[in-house]
Amino acid sequence: MDIKLIKYDENGLVPVIAQDYKDGTVLMLAYMNRESLQKTLDTKEMVYWSRSRNQLWHKGEASGHVQKVLEVRLDCDADAVLLKVEQVGGIACHTGRESCFFRKLEDGRWVGTDPVLKDPKLIYDE
Amino acid sequence: MDIKLIKYDENGLVPVIAQDYKDGTVLMLAYMNRESLQKTLDTKEMVYWSRSRNQLWHKGEASGHVQKVLEVRLDCDADAVLLKVEQVGGIACHTGRESCFFRKLEDGRWVGTDPVLKDPKLIYDE
Repeated sequence: MDIKLIKYDENGLVPVIAQDYKDGTVLMLAYMNRESLQKTLDTKEMVYWSRSRNQLWHKGEASGHVQKVLEVRLDCDADAVLLKVEQVGGIACHTGRESCFFRKLEDGRWVGTDPVLKDPKLIYDE
Repeated sequence: MDIKLIKYDENGLVPVIAQDYKDGTVLMLAYMNRESLQKTLDTKEMVYWSRSRNQLWHKGEASGHVQKVLEVRLDCDADAVLLKVEQVGGIACHTGRESCFFRKLEDGRWVGTDPVLKDPKLIYDE
């Protein structure tokens, strides 16, 4: 399959951007290895490689907030992938926010600007 | 300054997403080190760290297609940065396209879908 074109780094990983298909919000940046990308393409749901847990990470397996893959793009250097997704529940971040990029630099300080849509305790208890 | 919060990788780099401020198009993914991020914040134009040339890379220095910084965001893990920019000339990619993510996966193949807006020869000869 042509996805072999992708250049993985020295750890066998490629950075992946998940972007909301509807409004273009950048939801998160994470990593995939060959296996997780293949699973993502096969299941049409985002399966990352967790660098902290060193294992496949089916996004939403605990929270229910899976990301359904609608489009896959590769950049000119073939070392970054952009996936447009439908974010189930409208929440990508484990803090209960829409996007993981919820902190904005204002006068040299990071300010959490985006609202918490759901208490993480409720997300992970259900 | 609070931007110290950022976690750089073992090479002192952090992945950076440049997103068009107006329409949300993801233009490119590249890397910054501490110095290039500081220059970016000081000059309000994107200054990446070129991993291939191992030097600071003021985006647009050759093409004129600089990226003016309008917003800086950090993710929940503090290991990825999202910058919303005004893309001067409407072209981020060295191939003359709006975005570097111009290849789309279709039936297992990468297909260049986005149009070349300007011949790269003309971009770099001017």
